[in-house]
Amino acid sequence: MKVKEIMDKEFIVVSLDQNLVEVSKKMEKYKKFATPVVDDQMRLVGWVTSLDVNRGFRDGLNKVSEIMHSNEAIIHLHENDPARLAVLKTSKHKLVIIPVLNDERVVVGVVRAFDIVETLSKLYEIKVYKIFEIMSKELKGVSWDELMEAAAIITRRRTGQRVTAEEYERRIKKSTFGEAIWATGGLEKFFVGLIDIGELVIARKVARARK
Amino acid sequence: MKVKEIMDKEFIVVSLDQNLVEVSKKMEKYKKFATPVVDDQMRLVGWVTSLDVNRGFRDGLNKVSEIMHSNEAIIHLHENDPARLAVLKTSKHKLVIIPVLNDERVVVGVVRAFDIVETLSKLYEIKVYKIFEIMSKELKGVSWDELMEAAAIITRRRTGQRVTAEEYERRIKKSTFGEAIWATGGLEKFFVGLIDIGELVIARKVARARK
Repeated sequence: MKVKEIMDKEFIVVSLDQNLVEVSKKMEKYKKFATPVVDDQMRLVGWVTSLDVNRGFRDGLNKVSEIMHSNEAIIHLHENDPARLAVLKTSKHKLVIIPVLNDERVVVGVVRAFDIVETLSKLYEIKVYKIFEIMSKELKGVSWDELMEAAAIITRRRTGQRVTAEEYERRIKKSTFGEAIWATGGLEKFFVGLIDIGELVIARKVARARK
Repeated sequence: MKVKEIMDKEFIVVSLDQNLVEVSKKMEKYKKFATPVVDDQMRLVGWVTSLDVNRGFRDGLNKVSEIMHSNEAIIHLHENDPARLAVLKTSKHKLVIIPVLNDERVVVGVVRAFDIVETLSKLYEIKVYKIFEIMSKELKGVSWDELMEAAAIITRRRTGQRVTAEEYERRIKKSTFGEAIWATGGLEKFFVGLIDIGELVIARKVARARK
């Protein structure tokens, strides 16, 4: 996935000689905490946050050029950068919004922290149920009911919680992979549970075959 | 995981009758685009963003109480809410920062979008190697070398790619869960591979036990 696939194209821009009252109204109208400053060809020349505008008002300044961060100081992304870079820059530099440029330094979008949150969380939105369906299909000779039975047993063992196979099935139909990770305390713990379940159904299958 | 485990405790607060110049300087100093407004017992009574401060300056207002969002309008979290709720509220309402309250409505922290990005990406950034370490630990009686051997066999079977156990080990030491998902073509396929590997090592273990 590339930066251009997760960037927001509905961004605002301001120009060097725009006055602060105007800029402040625009930022408020579109609810933007920061905006790129561009030249007449949409190339990035500066960066202004709402905190800069506040300082401008306090100090009696008038123009964007008087309050903006200059070009060199702006952390930005290229539209063809891997999306992962947007994630890393956002969390490393604690950013709310990052401008995205093309080869000509034209601003083509912005990446916002909450958009990344949405993208990342979607990756985890697959239903746990689906994962068990895959297990059931892969582990030939193990029925769905046997899998649910084993899952209920492992859950009881690990949490002390008495849960029936039916309850377990109902639960995983509702919950997502993301929820399961958060609930069990991380990917590692979720895997441990899955492995235990897998091991149990296979052991039971082998035992059955021996009879 | 709970909200209190991912929230930032180094937040700033302002009070109802604080003047805007002071508030604006504080927000700039600590680089905060928004801040809770609290009473003398740290209970949430309002919410102010840097855009509100801008509007206040434009309109010649003086005090926090004149520009703040009132209590009812503030999207907030409880410290014991599941962390997933912070993710959902951030992406649904496109928020940059959310106040976290305890039972007494006291502000105990804030959740910031970029902190969530960091937490989510960490889940995603876990090394595939780590997942195999967990498998090896959970599947008692299966050695690390047996696991790598099985993984190489399954990879050969599924992709036709001839890979040795050593090569496989080197590969998973470098790649992350996120990369593996993209490489295998999705979470489902990644799981299928893991299940196959697990099944193979268990079958081999059982066969060995029989001898």
